[in-house]
Amino acid sequence: GKAFKVAVLPGDGIGPEVMAEALKVLDAVEKRYDVTFERTHANVGGAGIDQEGKALPETTVNICKASDAILFGSVGGPKWETLPPDEQPERGALLPLRKIFGLYANLRPAIIFPSLTAASSLKEEVIAGGFDILVIRELTGGIYFSQPKGIEGAGRERVGVDTMRYSVPEIERIAHVAFQAAQKRGKKVCSIDKANVLSTSVLWREIVIGVAKQYPDVELSHMYVDNAAMQLVKWPKQFDVILCENMFGDILSDEAAMLTGSLGMLPSASLAEGTFGMYEPSGGSAPDIAGQGIANPIAQILSAGMMLRYSFGMIEAADAIDNAVAKVLDQGYRTRDIYQESAGLKLVNTKEIGDAIIANL
Amino acid sequence: GKAFKVAVLPGDGIGPEVMAEALKVLDAVEKRYDVTFERTHANVGGAGIDQEGKALPETTVNICKASDAILFGSVGGPKWETLPPDEQPERGALLPLRKIFGLYANLRPAIIFPSLTAASSLKEEVIAGGFDILVIRELTGGIYFSQPKGIEGAGRERVGVDTMRYSVPEIERIAHVAFQAAQKRGKKVCSIDKANVLSTSVLWREIVIGVAKQYPDVELSHMYVDNAAMQLVKWPKQFDVILCENMFGDILSDEAAMLTGSLGMLPSASLAEGTFGMYEPSGGSAPDIAGQGIANPIAQILSAGMMLRYSFGMIEAADAIDNAVAKVLDQGYRTRDIYQESAGLKLVNTKEIGDAIIANL
Ligand SMILES: CC(C)[C@H](C(=O)O)[C@@H](O)C(=O)O
Ligand SMILES: CC(C)[C@H](C(=O)O)[C@@H](O)C(=O)O
Repeated sequence: GKAFKVAVLPGDGIGPEVMAEALKVLDAVEKRYDVTFERTHANVGGAGIDQEGKALPETTVNICKASDAILFGSVGGPKWETLPPDEQPERGALLPLRKIFGLYANLRPAIIFPSLTAASSLKEEVIAGGFDILVIRELTGGIYFSQPKGIEGAGRERVGVDTMRYSVPEIERIAHVAFQAAQKRGKKVCSIDKANVLSTSVLWREIVIGVAKQYPDVELSHMYVDNAAMQLVKWPKQFDVILCENMFGDILSDEAAMLTGSLGMLPSASLAEGTFGMYEPSGGSAPDIAGQGIANPIAQILSAGMMLRYSFGMIEAADAIDNAVAKVLDQGYRTRDIYQESAGLKLVNTKEIGDAIIANL
Repeated sequence: GKAFKVAVLPGDGIGPEVMAEALKVLDAVEKRYDVTFERTHANVGGAGIDQEGKALPETTVNICKASDAILFGSVGGPKWETLPPDEQPERGALLPLRKIFGLYANLRPAIIFPSLTAASSLKEEVIAGGFDILVIRELTGGIYFSQPKGIEGAGRERVGVDTMRYSVPEIERIAHVAFQAAQKRGKKVCSIDKANVLSTSVLWREIVIGVAKQYPDVELSHMYVDNAAMQLVKWPKQFDVILCENMFGDILSDEAAMLTGSLGMLPSASLAEGTFGMYEPSGGSAPDIAGQGIANPIAQILSAGMMLRYSFGMIEAADAIDNAVAKVLDQGYRTRDIYQESAGLKLVNTKEIGDAIIANL
């Protein structure tokens, strides 16, 4: 059978608890499919700071380098919030990981399951039947990583500077990811920019239009980022794949995720060229409920599913995980974050919903 | 009595129709208060392009320069959408106006009137009782105006570049606007940044904290822009004044405006140092309903009210306009955009609601 090496980075807060359930699901996949997941645990985030002095220790980087994919939990918490931004768990771990491993394509599904529309702060009539948006965010360019960046001068003469920069190949490769994803879904790409103000956006739009010619079966539209922030609220169902540069993708993917009302349900993938990728829940480390065994592990489990799909090419097993999650929701299992008092709903804890998902695999 | 010079720029689409109602309100104010508004009409946007060859003709700039304030309608429409971005009505008129007149402080209220919560796509339980957010957006700096900006190189070697830059005085003056506004309202400022990624944000946060010391009665908090995009959807009532740099303010003010569900109700002010300002509705030119006499003029009328308040120091008259609008809504008058079939609601057109507001002055 095949063997894949997985770097397991549980991180902080609820990270370790929800990771435990995702690993149980990987165990179950090993039993059902002829595959082995060789797992190496490593510290990251606050755990990295506490154990090895930094959010992304060298040992962790080396373990990731020796792996076929990274399964990431979540990082951050009040304990480390007073550190300088560069050293904090989130920024200090995520940005270097993206850069070191060239994770240029961030896939962030914002799916509202028909049975969970009650969790959204949107009106029932706006989201009846659910919605299914995939935000494709460029993750290694733009204003996050371009130079010059810094604070120049001294005292009241200081000036803060950041640079947003995009090259043609950077735009092309992320556009291909969006169009290829759309081909497997609703066949629509809405490309977000601010071409009425930004030069990067003018180039972005031109290149995206060029790439679209290779995908005649996909319908391309363009929307300014400010309008997109409105349209998401107004009628999220109008979107299929949303293609964004790094900063706009950061903002809009979070807005879209919150519109689902179920952050604990949303996985994400950050892909490099080739098959390497990092997989993590979209929600945070939720330090307020950490250690109580009540966190929702579904986002972490679905992240493991994305790992099988995108890094290991195990489409059948990935589909099985997605289906098992859907079945468990249909059966009425709910962790506290998605529970509401209603006939047929069963309030369960982290471990119980993990077991239920495995039972449905 | 006093006399103020007003540059009247109706623009495109519904602009002229809703402007007519705002001017009627100014007539009514002249009769009730000892004041004269000397109005000079000028072309802007698509009207500027069609009449004088550009979105912001020289004559218009000169008329604005000779005035105490600009009352702006709205610009844009399908007719001009194929022009290069720089020449289009919106960008080609608004950005130069902001720069020429130093309109650094953009005030964008996002208010949901308790009687209009049905128009929002948010659930009744999330917005019961309404909400009242004031977004203060820096409007002449940041990535909109900083250099270098452009597309370098040729062919596939091209690189798009934009620069986000903020100096200490630029941050200080907009922070003062936010704190002073908060003192007159809910006494809370939430400053938005991305200090975990952007150097401009690190400086922004430091300077805002410094300015806050002069306003001990105002509570300051900080939020990352991605989280803010989520929190607006989740619980808009948590916000009072939101302070943003230019680009984040563009995105979040539009998101907040859409959350109210009533774009036709939202005015905005763009203020220079001193008393000069430009006043315009937050909504667009709505070409689809232009010329039918059914557009909602309330945003334009409230914009005229903001002009009285901020440029002319006529607080009493400004309050009278705000109150007249509230009364008319309480009386059940509704233009089509905010109408719903319900006992006591009267569907009216642009002119009728304008008349009703004047009757309540
Ligand atoms: C922690 C932060 C640097 C990061 C980002 O802005 O990309 C986070 O918000 C995310 O979206 O993954
Ligand atoms: C038209 C455009 C340049 C403008 C902006 O981005 O500022 C508009 O979206 C606005 O918010 O007034």
